[in-house]
Amino acid sequence: MSEQLKGIAASDGIAIAKAYRLVEPDLSFNKQAVDDTENETKRLETAISKSNDELQIIRDKAKEALGEEEAQVFDAHMMILADPEFTGAVKQKIVDEKVNAEAALDEVSSQFVSMFEAMTDNKYMQERAADVRDVTKRIMSHLLGVELPNPALIDKEVIIVAKDLTPSDTAQLNKNFVKAFVTDLGGRTAHSAIMARSLEIPAIVGSENITTEATEDEMIIVDGINGDIILDPTDAEIAEYQEKAKAFAAQKAEWNKLKNEATVTADGKHYTIAANIGTPKDLTGVLDNGAEAIGLYRTEFLYMDSAELPSEDDQFQAYKTVLESMGDKPVVVRTMDIGGDKHLPYLPLPEEMNPFLGYRAIRISLDRQEIFRTQLRALLRASVHGKLQIMFPMIATLPEFRQAKAIFEEEKAKLVAEGTPVSDDIQTGIMIEIPAAAVLADQFAKEVDFFSIGTNDLIQYTMAADRGNEHVSYLYQPYNPSILRLVKNVIDAAHKEGKWTGMCGEAAGDSIMAPLLLGMGLDEYSMSATSVLRVRSLMKRLSTADMKVLADKAMTEMTTNDEVAEMVKKATNQ
Amino acid sequence: MSEQLKGIAASDGIAIAKAYRLVEPDLSFNKQAVDDTENETKRLETAISKSNDELQIIRDKAKEALGEEEAQVFDAHMMILADPEFTGAVKQKIVDEKVNAEAALDEVSSQFVSMFEAMTDNKYMQERAADVRDVTKRIMSHLLGVELPNPALIDKEVIIVAKDLTPSDTAQLNKNFVKAFVTDLGGRTAHSAIMARSLEIPAIVGSENITTEATEDEMIIVDGINGDIILDPTDAEIAEYQEKAKAFAAQKAEWNKLKNEATVTADGKHYTIAANIGTPKDLTGVLDNGAEAIGLYRTEFLYMDSAELPSEDDQFQAYKTVLESMGDKPVVVRTMDIGGDKHLPYLPLPEEMNPFLGYRAIRISLDRQEIFRTQLRALLRASVHGKLQIMFPMIATLPEFRQAKAIFEEEKAKLVAEGTPVSDDIQTGIMIEIPAAAVLADQFAKEVDFFSIGTNDLIQYTMAADRGNEHVSYLYQPYNPSILRLVKNVIDAAHKEGKWTGMCGEAAGDSIMAPLLLGMGLDEYSMSATSVLRVRSLMKRLSTADMKVLADKAMTEMTTNDEVAEMVKKATNQ
Repeated sequence: MSEQLKGIAASDGIAIAKAYRLVEPDLSFNKQAVDDTENETKRLETAISKSNDELQIIRDKAKEALGEEEAQVFDAHMMILADPEFTGAVKQKIVDEKVNAEAALDEVSSQFVSMFEAMTDNKYMQERAADVRDVTKRIMSHLLGVELPNPALIDKEVIIVAKDLTPSDTAQLNKNFVKAFVTDLGGRTAHSAIMARSLEIPAIVGSENITTEATEDEMIIVDGINGDIILDPTDAEIAEYQEKAKAFAAQKAEWNKLKNEATVTADGKHYTIAANIGTPKDLTGVLDNGAEAIGLYRTEFLYMDSAELPSEDDQFQAYKTVLESMGDKPVVVRTMDIGGDKHLPYLPLPEEMNPFLGYRAIRISLDRQEIFRTQLRALLRASVHGKLQIMFPMIATLPEFRQAKAIFEEEKAKLVAEGTPVSDDIQTGIMIEIPAAAVLADQFAKEVDFFSIGTNDLIQYTMAADRGNEHVSYLYQPYNPSILRLVKNVIDAAHKEGKWTGMCGEAAGDSIMAPLLLGMGLDEYSMSATSVLRVRSLMKRLSTADMKVLADKAMTEMTTNDEVAEMVKKATNQ
Repeated sequence: MSEQLKGIAASDGIAIAKAYRLVEPDLSFNKQAVDDTENETKRLETAISKSNDELQIIRDKAKEALGEEEAQVFDAHMMILADPEFTGAVKQKIVDEKVNAEAALDEVSSQFVSMFEAMTDNKYMQERAADVRDVTKRIMSHLLGVELPNPALIDKEVIIVAKDLTPSDTAQLNKNFVKAFVTDLGGRTAHSAIMARSLEIPAIVGSENITTEATEDEMIIVDGINGDIILDPTDAEIAEYQEKAKAFAAQKAEWNKLKNEATVTADGKHYTIAANIGTPKDLTGVLDNGAEAIGLYRTEFLYMDSAELPSEDDQFQAYKTVLESMGDKPVVVRTMDIGGDKHLPYLPLPEEMNPFLGYRAIRISLDRQEIFRTQLRALLRASVHGKLQIMFPMIATLPEFRQAKAIFEEEKAKLVAEGTPVSDDIQTGIMIEIPAAAVLADQFAKEVDFFSIGTNDLIQYTMAADRGNEHVSYLYQPYNPSILRLVKNVIDAAHKEGKWTGMCGEAAGDSIMAPLLLGMGLDEYSMSATSVLRVRSLMKRLSTADMKVLADKAMTEMTTNDEVAEMVKKATNQ
């Protein structure tokens, strides 16, 4: 009998393949006294040697799939395996204390980790602590005879099953073999969900217990459109979902015909559908899906994918590539949004009780101005290669925007004085993701060139509910009338001053939200590239006048998120 | 030469006394090999014996000052000292491993702590981990010959100097001896600051470096009105501050004449000034200061001061005491607000990345209904003893309020069916502290009896800035036009439906905020009891019509917190 599970649909599409459990096995052990320390030392040596062989293979595969730079982390692991200070200490402990290899390894490893972590003034050595932990796990797995998952070694079609996927996990996934993934944790706005949409592979998050239910190599069906998972499906179920997969492919082909069309509603109004990107690599998806602009370029990946602060030149190259590829289409670049749940190994941030309410984004940029100024200079230099628009994240107050803008003008003036060409037509705007800014939008609209509404954070702060916390996930309510009213207030305030408003949160590509936003007059809709054609197709059959009535009703007559969703579904035949 | 420091004025008044450092001393040590293990064992025994004598004295003092129940924690400590499993293991380690007593104590203690903490299904044993840690510190202090601070032993007038004070630290402070306190950390809305105002002792928080600057027994002047601290003052300075203390006392005496007056503005309008309380013990302050109501009874102290969930009868007694003491004056009781930074040892909450955006207050009550229903039954039974009004904290959506109200009605019906008398005139309202509720106030106003605005949280969420995080403390902006607009929206929405609005955050007692609130038509102002007469005196000289003009200007023409503060100060001669 097949087994059905339900999760949160995070990325469209259907996949049928065998499970690959990316789950850490149980590495616990008992400390034991041993008499035959010679044999115990041999056990250790065998485990080290097996670990070394394994790392060599992983390294080669990683180099092939991801490139030399990504593969180098495994060199560091092999160096630790070869380090007599480390392995020698484990052997010594076995002999001196007559304990089993597992216990000796664990204790020596803890000492090394503590020692490295204590080197707070040497970032390089601090990072070695993570390497020691990884290597210890690998040796331990061989001592205990259990297998560590090695995603870099995947060479057949699989569906990844995991508790959660970190950014570095998702970065390692090879799209040729990984057909989908399902996680226990996370929501539609989790990093892994965003990555899945960018990779265009189906994904379901927040399934709660996929890791306890799915066994290695078990056949799985993943329906990323509806959030359905079927374990050990029957032949009939497989046939049914193969049909669905075909239908989905056919619909995509249908949408694909809209690729070179503008986004025009049933009553002939034109709106801009833009795409969100994280790195220049995402440009292919943007162009393939016919996005009319880039509404959000998340520059923090430049910082996260680097071992140190990216130089002005490195940044300039990335920005130039994106601007040139887009030609005369606008590119909205968001300045560094670090902090919250995004950390840089080389930029230690204070430990905070509530990082989402803490030192992040523009708050860091205005405090650590050398980082901010470098980014602005790189952007200014790149500005002559396309149509650049800059926005500042996490703006709460007008003085913050004024200061950011003043710094921008200073760097611009310096470049001009140096004789460097910069565009004279760079719009500067702000993210609206903090309630204070949404409420004061009329005042901001007098000073900014545009707004871009970040719904994930705006909802999280307006509802006072961490969007990653499953205990309050019921409060992630994009259609709550309070959210709709704040969004409307922002759009109206902008229009009153002749400015434009975009939305770059996930909500802009949502089939319920998009009709409401159309009714409110939102100018630009920025979303995952893979959603662009679906939303363009949806908007083609909607009338702005009808949607205006609908949105007004949602903000005044409806009192809950569910009521609004219900009404929009009915009114738009979804 | 005297030394001046500056901090955040947290509680009014002036104190001059010697410093008492409530700061944990350095208990670090070196692990050493010892040959004479017999002597080392003796060192340990002496330290244990001294610790025991000390605990006996502390226990007696604590019983005298705080009662038998509070003293019993020290029995648990003495039991550990007498436990051969624990002390025996330390001695054994000294002999077996030939290490010094400090190292042996530390290692055995770590093992015990880990063992207790691992007993996740036995709360009682888990709590023993904290006891082991405390006892270990005490023995270690005697081994190292350094002194642990013992606040229970204070028997002369002192000013407490600390990094921060926990709720249990402040609970132990004896007002007869503790004349003031100064901390490195915290802000005006920190728990310790609120406690200081409730104890009516001067306090300065957030001084940043009082613990590094002030030495034990050094003379200190604390000016809790202006946030000034003088270390080692000159005779002239002492004389100057004795004069200021006199002037402050005289002003208090002047204010005191208003004790039995109603709060009436210069143009003859009456408003209610209420007080916030945490426990029935605070009633004295409420009555002494002539508060016209209790605008916030924080019932979580009932839960925090208890070793288990308080029974329905225990709660009933507390509520009855408060209601009876207030007679026909209203008492607004807030249901349990646990979570965020408030934890109960017997109610494990999930570990959260951002607890302020997590599982707390009504979110717990609606999920753990047995706790909520017990509280509501206790309140309903007490309702016949006074004028009870109930409010629910952290309401974000209408369905949450509807569910809470329905549970209230169910319990009421059950009691009536059982023949228990309950009042038929209990208002039910909500805290407005989440932006979503402030924005949707018009819809809420149709269903609730009243609003009470909690400014601390409302500001924190609206600005997306943790109020306890010093890195973003510049964003704690009560006068930011966005906050003022949300507050005004709530007041107007209530009035439109014939309902009333109070404010129970610290801002209601703030000299800049109160005039603005008067201008917006706020009905009830609830604050620390010690602020009641000061604000009554202020309001007597203000005209509501003038303040209305001022408030409108603040919300439209002003763009920043500072501009608003400046304008109000000028307009009200402050």
